[in-house]
Amino acid sequence: MRIPILKLHDCLLISIQWELDDATALQFQEDLLHKIHETSANGVVIDLTSIEIIDSFIAKVLGDVINMSKLMGAKVVITGIQPAVAITLVELGITLSDVMTAIDLEKGLEKLQKELGD
Amino acid sequence: MRIPILKLHDCLLISIQWELDDATALQFQEDLLHKIHETSANGVVIDLTSIEIIDSFIAKVLGDVINMSKLMGAKVVITGIQPAVAITLVELGITLSDVMTAIDLEKGLEKLQKELGD
Repeated sequence: MRIPILKLHDCLLISIQWELDDATALQFQEDLLHKIHETSANGVVIDLTSIEIIDSFIAKVLGDVINMSKLMGAKVVITGIQPAVAITLVELGITLSDVMTAIDLEKGLEKLQKELGD
Repeated sequence: MRIPILKLHDCLLISIQWELDDATALQFQEDLLHKIHETSANGVVIDLTSIEIIDSFIAKVLGDVINMSKLMGAKVVITGIQPAVAITLVELGITLSDVMTAIDLEKGLEKLQKELGD
């Protein structure tokens, strides 16, 4: 199963609405990087509102995909991080310190478009 | 497996990126109606760009979900219908005659927001 990636103007939107298994997470990483390449997207919003827990493997994949997207020239905003997910990320040492975050998808998209100068 | 439904302002965005099996299609129908109720969304964009074939059951579910969404007060735009899908829909007698359509997600969202007077 794959996670759908929506293209809206020059941004990609992804809403992760269920706990990912390892294979889906890796597939998502690959799909997102291909989609950035294919669409020349400048920004990516990953919405985690519906994710209530995250394990260390998924947290690592998420950290990796953010860094990879940046290398490819896309700005990343993570939205809707739940308290338990924030706790897990920090405890795992994944502080996402140089990643933009926002409370929800709308705010994330606004932030990204401002940043991209739209 | 469920299809993620993204909320953006007062619209819901859904991108169907793989062929649906019957159970997923029915689950999607239920999820979408619940989400319309929960978020009081005024509009729904269903993007079918990645769908290259459609069978009669899925076509019926799609026709139904459009009518149900309308009954609940949400305007529906279908985007990215591929040639083969258009042929199947018309051959099955599902002309979606009173549904707005658009070539892609951006155009569909624009059309919807114009219609909703944003």
